[in-house]
Amino acid sequence: MFKKVLVANRGEIAVRIIRTLKEMGIKSVAIYSSADADSLHVRLADEAIAVGGPRSKDSYLNMKNILSAAVLTGAEAIHPGYGFLSENEAFAEMVGAVGLKWIGPSPKVLELMGNKANARESMREAGVPVIPGSEGFIHNASEAKKVAERIGYPLLLKAAAGGGGKGMRFVYSENELAEKFDDAQREAKAAFGDGHMYVEKVMTNVRHIEMQIIRDQQGNVLYFPERNCSLQRNNQKVMEESPAVGVTQAMRDELGAIATRAVNALDYENTGTLEFLEDHDGNFYFMEMNTRIQVEHPVTELVTGVDLIKMQVQVAAGEALTLRQTDIKVNGHAIEVRLNAEQPERNFAPSAGKINFAFLPTGGPGIRIDSAIYSGDIIQPFYDSMIGKLLVHGDDRAEAVVKMKRILDEMVIDGVNTNADFQEALLNDDVVAEGLFTTQYLEHDFLPKWQKSLTSGE
Amino acid sequence: MFKKVLVANRGEIAVRIIRTLKEMGIKSVAIYSSADADSLHVRLADEAIAVGGPRSKDSYLNMKNILSAAVLTGAEAIHPGYGFLSENEAFAEMVGAVGLKWIGPSPKVLELMGNKANARESMREAGVPVIPGSEGFIHNASEAKKVAERIGYPLLLKAAAGGGGKGMRFVYSENELAEKFDDAQREAKAAFGDGHMYVEKVMTNVRHIEMQIIRDQQGNVLYFPERNCSLQRNNQKVMEESPAVGVTQAMRDELGAIATRAVNALDYENTGTLEFLEDHDGNFYFMEMNTRIQVEHPVTELVTGVDLIKMQVQVAAGEALTLRQTDIKVNGHAIEVRLNAEQPERNFAPSAGKINFAFLPTGGPGIRIDSAIYSGDIIQPFYDSMIGKLLVHGDDRAEAVVKMKRILDEMVIDGVNTNADFQEALLNDDVVAEGLFTTQYLEHDFLPKWQKSLTSGE
Repeated sequence: MFKKVLVANRGEIAVRIIRTLKEMGIKSVAIYSSADADSLHVRLADEAIAVGGPRSKDSYLNMKNILSAAVLTGAEAIHPGYGFLSENEAFAEMVGAVGLKWIGPSPKVLELMGNKANARESMREAGVPVIPGSEGFIHNASEAKKVAERIGYPLLLKAAAGGGGKGMRFVYSENELAEKFDDAQREAKAAFGDGHMYVEKVMTNVRHIEMQIIRDQQGNVLYFPERNCSLQRNNQKVMEESPAVGVTQAMRDELGAIATRAVNALDYENTGTLEFLEDHDGNFYFMEMNTRIQVEHPVTELVTGVDLIKMQVQVAAGEALTLRQTDIKVNGHAIEVRLNAEQPERNFAPSAGKINFAFLPTGGPGIRIDSAIYSGDIIQPFYDSMIGKLLVHGDDRAEAVVKMKRILDEMVIDGVNTNADFQEALLNDDVVAEGLFTTQYLEHDFLPKWQKSLTSGE
Repeated sequence: MFKKVLVANRGEIAVRIIRTLKEMGIKSVAIYSSADADSLHVRLADEAIAVGGPRSKDSYLNMKNILSAAVLTGAEAIHPGYGFLSENEAFAEMVGAVGLKWIGPSPKVLELMGNKANARESMREAGVPVIPGSEGFIHNASEAKKVAERIGYPLLLKAAAGGGGKGMRFVYSENELAEKFDDAQREAKAAFGDGHMYVEKVMTNVRHIEMQIIRDQQGNVLYFPERNCSLQRNNQKVMEESPAVGVTQAMRDELGAIATRAVNALDYENTGTLEFLEDHDGNFYFMEMNTRIQVEHPVTELVTGVDLIKMQVQVAAGEALTLRQTDIKVNGHAIEVRLNAEQPERNFAPSAGKINFAFLPTGGPGIRIDSAIYSGDIIQPFYDSMIGKLLVHGDDRAEAVVKMKRILDEMVIDGVNTNADFQEALLNDDVVAEGLFTTQYLEHDFLPKWQKSLTSGE
C-alpha cells in the first residue's frame, strides 16, 4: 500500500479523500492556491504545498507545480478528485512518467472517453446501446442529412472534441442543417482545433440515469445501484439520488451487465460512471463516461455501505476487490443536495465572502454532510460555487425526503447566500416528491413556477 | 399519531428527540431553564416554554411547571429523554392523571425497577439469572451473615431504595459485617427514608453487557444486539460499543430470550435496557434495568439501521412494531465516545464557559455526531458535563476504532476543556484496542498509567 498520496484538488472532495487516507494510515499531501491557505483541506492534510495563485490555471490546473509538489514530498500516488485535472490525459501521462501512480484509469482511456465521438463509437463496438445517430464522424452537411433521414429531427450536431456546449447545435429541420453544420464546425475548429463532427438524436422526456462501476487491475468488476441525476440546471446536477424510482432489480442487473461489458472492453482501471439517458419505455442509451470519482458518489456509499474512495486507493495500489457483486445490495434510499454559494433568485449568480457562522445539522440517524466549510471560512470567487453536499439515508424515498427537508430547515449559513431555500422548494414540489421527473423538468417546469412564486410573494 | 409532543429534557437528547419528531410530522415543544434560553433544543423546537431557574430542581425537575407547559401548549404526550424525570414514577403518574401519554413504561414498572431489591426479585422470579446474593430483603447483620456463608466475601451491602452509592458498603470479611450493616442502613434511612437492605456478591473481572429491548402495547418484543459498556469511571460510562467482542450470535439470542421473558413478565411498554455483568465464562447476571432511552442508544441504531426514538413514539401512540426479530441484524461495528466538558488531568473537574469555536468533523462514510453545541454556545455549570456523542460505524471494530481516532483528532472545541485527548489515549491503549477490558480496567489499570504519562510528560 502507498505510504503517501498527494490530493490534487480542493474543497469538500479534497477533505473527503484526505479523511479516507488518514483512516487507511496513508500520509496525505494537500496542494493549495494562495487564496486557500486557510482552507480545511490544508489544515487536515499531513503536509500542504502551495502551488500557485488564486486562479485555477495558476494552481489547481498547474501541472508542473503539482507534479513538483508530489515529487518533493515523496508522494507515491496522486488522487485527482473530480474536475480540475481529473480527466486530463496529459497530466495522467506526466504522473506516470515521473514514476508516480495515477489513481484513475490510464491516459489512453482518459483520452478515448474524453473525445465524445470516439467514446460513443467504442461503446457501440462493445455492444452498449448508444443514442441513435451517426456511426463515426460525419464530414459535411450531406452526410448529416443522410443520418437525419434515418433518425429524424430534431437532432444534435456535436463536435467530437466538444465540451461546454461549444460546437454544438440543435437542428429542427432539414432546411437549417447546412448552415448550422458549417457554423458548428467552424466554432469547433476555433475552440478545439478539431473539426470532427457527429450527430445524435435529440431525446426528450428522458431521465439521466448513471451507473457507477469499479474495475481492479486483475479485471474484476463491481457495479453499483443506479443513480438518478435528472434534476439539472444548465447541464449541472442539482440533486441526485439512489436508487432511481421505477428501476427494477432486473433493469439494474441488465445495466450492470452492459457497464461491465463496456469497462472490460476498455481494460478499464478504477472507478468510473457510465451516464445513460432512459426513455419512457425503460430503454437506456449511453451518453458519456466520467472517468473519475463523481460529486454524487456518497449516495452510492449510503445505500451500499462501501467507501468508494478507499476502494479507489486499494485498486490503484494493485489490490484485488474483495467484495463480490452479490455483496452489493440496495439498502434504503439516499439523496444528495448540492449546497451552492449562489443566489437562485438572481439567476443563480455566485456568492462569495466570509461565512460568519455555519451550523451544519449533523446528528440523528441517516445524516451525512460532506463539506469543507467552517465558521469563519472564506468562500473564494475563483472556484466552483458548490460548498458542500447534504446527504440523507432513509428506509425509503419518502423518509429520505423528509430528512432532507429537516436538515435544510435546520442549517444556518450566515455571510454568503446559498441555494438551500431553492432546494427546499424543489423538494416540496409534487413531481419531485414522486421522483418521476425528466431532465427537462427543473428548468422547463419547476423554475418558471418558482420564479413566479418569488415575484408574487407566495 | 400524536400531533404535538413535549420533550422534557435539554442538550443533545432533547435535540435528538425533536429531530425525529420533525421527521414524523409531529410538532415539538421544548422546555428550558433560564440559563438555556439560547440553547439549540429551544431553537429547533416548534415551541419553547421557560419552566424555571438554572438549577435542575427549579426547571428540568420542576414537575408542576413542566406539566403546565404541556397542558398549555396542547401537547398530547411527554418524552422524558434520559436522566432528570425519565424514571420518576410520580411524574409519570401525574402525566397520566392529566390525560397525557407518557412515552415510556407505566409508573408501576418505573417504581418496581427503581427499587433495586424489588427489581432483582422480580427478575429472579421471571427466570432471569441475577447476581448471587440475598433472596428479598435482609433485616439485620445476622441475616446478612447467613447469605455470606453461601456466596462468600467480599460482598456488597446495598440499600433497596439506593442510588449514587448511598447506603452501600463493601464488606471484605465477617468481622466487619455487623458494623457496616448498621452504618449502611442508617445512611439509607437518612437518605431515602427507607432502611430496606439486600446483599450481592462482589463480582470482579466482569464486563458490563446490556441488552436493549422494545415492547409494544400489543405485547410484541424486539431485542437488539448487545452493547459493551465496560469502560467506566465512577460508575459512569465513558465509551460504548456494539456488538461486544466475544459475544456470539448464540449468546446474543440467549440473552435476548432472557430479556424477552423479563419484559413479558413485567408487561413492559416501550424501550428499556437490561444491564448484565458477564463473568469470564460467559455467564450473564442481571444487574439493573434502565426504564428509558439510554445515552448510548445510537450505537444500536448504527448497527441495526433503526430509529429507536421513532419506535418509542410509535409504540407510545399504540402502533404495533412492524419489524420482526429476524429483521434485526448486526451490521458492522459501532462505537460511541462521550464528549464531556471536563478536565481529565484535574481529576475530571467539569469545565464550563463559552464555546468560541466548534468544529465537529461530520463528513465521509460512517460518522455521526449527536450534540447540541455550536460556535458561540455557552456550556452551563448547572448540568451534566456531557456535551455530545461522537459515533462511528465501520465494517468491523478495527475500522470503527480508526474512524473514531480520526474524528477525535480533527475535532476542534475552543473555549472549554474536553476529554477528547483522554478518549484518544484510551483508544490508543492496547487492551482497549483488543476490546477485552473489564469494568475495572479504565479506573484500575488505564487511569494510573495515563496519569503517570502526564506527569512524566510522555
